[in-house]
Amino acid sequence: MNSRIALFAATAALLASFSAQAQFAKPEDAIKYRQSAFSVMGAHTGRLGAMVNGRVPFDAKVAQDNADVIATMARLPWQGFGAGTEGGKAKANIWSDGAKFKAGGDKLAADAAALSAAAKSGNLDQIKAAFGAYAGNCKTCHDEFRSN
Amino acid sequence: MNSRIALFAATAALLASFSAQAQFAKPEDAIKYRQSAFSVMGAHTGRLGAMVNGRVPFDAKVAQDNADVIATMARLPWQGFGAGTEGGKAKANIWSDGAKFKAGGDKLAADAAALSAAAKSGNLDQIKAAFGAYAGNCKTCHDEFRSN
Repeated sequence: MNSRIALFAATAALLASFSAQAQFAKPEDAIKYRQSAFSVMGAHTGRLGAMVNGRVPFDAKVAQDNADVIATMARLPWQGFGAGTEGGKAKANIWSDGAKFKAGGDKLAADAAALSAAAKSGNLDQIKAAFGAYAGNCKTCHDEFRSN
Repeated sequence: MNSRIALFAATAALLASFSAQAQFAKPEDAIKYRQSAFSVMGAHTGRLGAMVNGRVPFDAKVAQDNADVIATMARLPWQGFGAGTEGGKAKANIWSDGAKFKAGGDKLAADAAALSAAAKSGNLDQIKAAFGAYAGNCKTCHDEFRSN
């Protein structure tokens, strides 16, 4: 009983530190969230890229794990670009040309899902092709919507 | 004595596997990676927690999406605690008591996977129970391994 109450209290206290809203309490939270999601996506893109480029031996299981994380992450950052969340390296045209930005994000997520599907084949050539299509989105979007 | 040797061996094997992976070029990259993964995990934990605690109306699809992201993220940060990556809020006992830290990480990942499975039921009571078990790990680990 006591330990249950303690656990509940501890959990409640922990949750109080999180946003009370479904999304973000403060613009800084949204900025941190999207940057974190991109950071994790970038790390796994780098790992899979090293395999695709032959710098690391091909391992189908590791490739699949990385592709799955990428596919999950690729759906996330866009939630962190709501109205009033300007900041970081985000250019103003993300908000002034929101439809184009959203289309780019949707394409990235779709190409990442296709990469994950390709990884299931265990065929490096298929993975290379899907990785190329996926990774092309990064540069396109960074050139247009991210300041250096 | 045997258990001490086993513990040492387990810790050594753990650290060796981190080093062998050579996932990060610099310790700062590992720190940024684990912090980013925890940050994304925390955001989605907050969203699901708001639903579990009734601050946000229950939506089975949204709960499932959040639980799935949590389950993916819960497997990631541990790669970022390799030898020589001290920093951030990480306490020194993460490395001096690596086996215990790893056990905690494994339990979190298992409880997060169970949360994702519970979310598939679409039953809020099942999700609440699984969420409580999952979220208990956060406080346990923060108390022992994270400085404030």
